Amino acid sequence: MDYYKASLKMHEENKGKMAVASKVKVETKDDLSTAYTPGVAEPCRKIYENPDDVYKYTNKSNTVAVVSDGSAVLGLGNIGGLASIPVMDGKSLLFKEFAGIDAFPVCLETQEVDEIVNIVKNIAPTLGGINLEDISAPRCFEIEEKLQSQVNIPVFHDDQHGTAVVVSAAVINAAKLTGRDLSRMKAIINGAGAAGTAIAKMLMNLGIEDVVACDSKGILTRERNDLNEAKKRLAAVTNKNQIKGTLAEAVKGRDLFIGVSAAKVLTQDMVKSMNENAIIFAMANPEPEILPDLAKEAGAAVVGTGRSDYPNQINNVLIFPGIFKGALAARAKRITEEMKTAAAFALAGVIEDSQLKPDYIIPSAFYPQVADIVAEAVKNAWKE
Amino acid sequence: MDYYKASLKMHEENKGKMAVASKVKVETKDDLSTAYTPGVAEPCRKIYENPDDVYKYTNKSNTVAVVSDGSAVLGLGNIGGLASIPVMDGKSLLFKEFAGIDAFPVCLETQEVDEIVNIVKNIAPTLGGINLEDISAPRCFEIEEKLQSQVNIPVFHDDQHGTAVVVSAAVINAAKLTGRDLSRMKAIINGAGAAGTAIAKMLMNLGIEDVVACDSKGILTRERNDLNEAKKRLAAVTNKNQIKGTLAEAVKGRDLFIGVSAAKVLTQDMVKSMNENAIIFAMANPEPEILPDLAKEAGAAVVGTGRSDYPNQINNVLIFPGIFKGALAARAKRITEEMKTAAAFALAGVIEDSQLKPDYIIPSAFYPQVADIVAEAVKNAWKE
Repeated sequence: MDYYKASLKMHEENKGKMAVASKVKVETKDDLSTAYTPGVAEPCRKIYENPDDVYKYTNKSNTVAVVSDGSAVLGLGNIGGLASIPVMDGKSLLFKEFAGIDAFPVCLETQEVDEIVNIVKNIAPTLGGINLEDISAPRCFEIEEKLQSQVNIPVFHDDQHGTAVVVSAAVINAAKLTGRDLSRMKAIINGAGAAGTAIAKMLMNLGIEDVVACDSKGILTRERNDLNEAKKRLAAVTNKNQIKGTLAEAVKGRDLFIGVSAAKVLTQDMVKSMNENAIIFAMANPEPEILPDLAKEAGAAVVGTGRSDYPNQINNVLIFPGIFKGALAARAKRITEEMKTAAAFALAGVIEDSQLKPDYIIPSAFYPQVADIVAEAVKNAWKE
Repeated sequence: MDYYKASLKMHEENKGKMAVASKVKVETKDDLSTAYTPGVAEPCRKIYENPDDVYKYTNKSNTVAVVSDGSAVLGLGNIGGLASIPVMDGKSLLFKEFAGIDAFPVCLETQEVDEIVNIVKNIAPTLGGINLEDISAPRCFEIEEKLQSQVNIPVFHDDQHGTAVVVSAAVINAAKLTGRDLSRMKAIINGAGAAGTAIAKMLMNLGIEDVVACDSKGILTRERNDLNEAKKRLAAVTNKNQIKGTLAEAVKGRDLFIGVSAAKVLTQDMVKSMNENAIIFAMANPEPEILPDLAKEAGAAVVGTGRSDYPNQINNVLIFPGIFKGALAARAKRITEEMKTAAAFALAGVIEDSQLKPDYIIPSAFYPQVADIVAEAVKNAWKE
C-alpha cells in the first residue's frame, strides 16, 4: 500500500482529520439562553469565585494541546509550524481514537524558546494537559522544563518520554524472556538527542546501572569537551565506568542496544561482539540501525523496530493516550518518574509471561484497552 | 425558566459544551500508517513546498479561534481568561451550530496588548479566522488593528463589528418601515466604547451623515479634552454640526437612538423630544436603556433590544456565523467595510418589505439559513 498517496488523498478529501463537535443542541430560544447569554454568566461567576470550578463546568479535564514548532518533524527535519499541521492533527486524532481525549493542534510560527513557553503558558486556561511534539533537542529540554515550572498541568514531550516509556516496557519484557536481571544488564544507547536522553534516564530509573550513551562522535564521557549542556548532563549520569571510544567499542559485551540514531549504523559484527542473546531495539525511521533479520542472524535474541511491518513495533501510540488519560483523571500537575515507570510496567504486563515470545514482547497498537490499563496505573502512581 | 440554574446544570453534566471529533477512523495498521506515520509526511512535504496547500490538506479553511482575555465579559466585567471559558466555549458552539464552523476557545492569562497580539499571531498557522471577544475598549481597537496587520486571515472583534452589522440591518429595515431616507436621518448613539464606536462608523458607511455619539459625560465634541485616543478619533468623524451638551440635549430632534450604555438612561421625556415615529434600539444588558412599552407609549414607532423576551432582538448570532462562513469561503484576508455592509443588507433583506412590521424588522436567531444568506453576500463582497 502506498501510504504517501493514500495519505494525500485522505487529507484532501477530509480537509484534515479533526473537527469540533457540539455536546449540546441549540434549537430553541431556551437552548440559546441556557448555553449562551444570559445563562452562561452563572458558570463564569462560579469559576471566578472558585477557579477550581473550571474542572466542573468546562472541558478542561479532557482537553490537551498538541504543541509543535515544527523544528524536528519525523524524518522531515525543521519544516516549521505550518507544514507540521498534518502531524499534530494526526496526533490529536490518536488522542481521540485511543483515549477519547479532546486534543487539538497548536502549530507555532515562532521557534524561540522563551516565546514558545510564554505563548503556551498564556493559552493554558482551557487545557488539562500539554503534549509537546517534534521540537528539536536541546531546545525541547529547556521548553519543557520552563513551561512545566509555570503551569499547573502536565507538560509531556512525547518524543522523549513517550518513547522512553515504550522502550522501557519492551526492555522489561525482553529481559524477562531472556532471563536477565535488570540491575545487571549492560545497555548502550546510540543517539543522545531528545529520545536517547530520556531513554537513558528511564533505564536507570528501572534499575539498569550500566548505561552508556553514544552520539555520532562516539561514547559520551565526562572528558569530552565537544558536548552541549544537555549532553554534558547526560554524560555526567551515564557511563559509570567511563569507557571511551566508538560505537563499535561501546557495544562490546553489552546486553542491550537501543538505537534512536540513523540507518544501518549497527553492523552484524557489532551484534556478534555483544553478549549472547542480545536485545536490539533499532528504532531509526524509516530504516532501522540494523534490519531484524540481520540482527537475528548475528545472534540477537529479541529485536524491535519503529516499523509496523516487523514484529515488536515500538510505537508511542501504546503509551501517550494512556499516560494523558491517567494524568487527567488524577488531575496531576505533572508527569512524575513514578508515573512513567508505572506506565512502562503496566504496558509490559499487558502480555502475560506465558505468552512472551521473541517476536511478541510488546502488544500491538490495537491491543484492546491498552490506554485504559496504562491510565489506571498512571492515575494510581500520581502523588504530589 | 431559570437560565442560570439550567446553565449550571448543562455545563456540569456535559463538562462544557464542545468536544473534538475525528473525521477519519483509525482501526487498522493501514489506517494508522495513512493518518499518521509514515503517510502523514507527504501532506507535510506538500505544505512545506507550497504553504498555500495548507488549505488543501488541513482544516484551516474551517477553523476559527474564539480569543478572549476576559477583560469585558458580558455583564460580568473583567473576570479574566479562566472564568470567561464558558462564554468562549458557548461562542464556539454557536459557530458550529449556526454555520458548521470548527471553533475553539482560546482564553488567555495575559491582558497585555502586545503580548496578546504576539500570542495569537504565533498560533495562527492552524486558523482560518480569529474572532476576538469580550476584550475591553480601548485595548480591543489596538489589539484588532495590530493583529490584523500581522496575519493574513480575518480578525473580527464581534462585540464591535458583529453588533454594528446587526444594528445596521435593523436600522435599514426600520428606516424603510417608517419611510425614512438613510442619508437624511439624524442618529444619536449613547455609549462610546467598542460597540458604540463600530456602530457610529458603520452608520456613516450606510450613508447616515448626522451621527452624534455620547459617553457618560455627554456629547462627544472635538473640544472635549477628557477623551482617550479612541474617543478623540470618534469625535473627529462624528457630530458634524458640533453640538454640545447632555444626552437629553443630544436626543432632541433625532430620528434614531441607539443605546449600548446602561439601564434606564433614556426617559420617556427624552423620547418625546425626538422626531415623530422615532426608532429606538436600547441594547443595554440585561436591562435596556428604556423598556419597549415605555418607549412606544412615548411615541417611538420601532423599538428593539438585546433581549429575547421582547420583539426585535438585536442578536449577534444573526451575523457572526455568516460573516465568518463567507469570509472563510472567499479566503478573505480581512473583513472589509464592504463585506460588513453587504452582510447588513443581506440580513435586512431576509424579511421582505411586505412582511415588515414595527415588531418584526429583524429575523429571529433561528430563522432558517440566515448564515448562508449572509455568507453568500459576504463572500461576493470580498475584494483584495
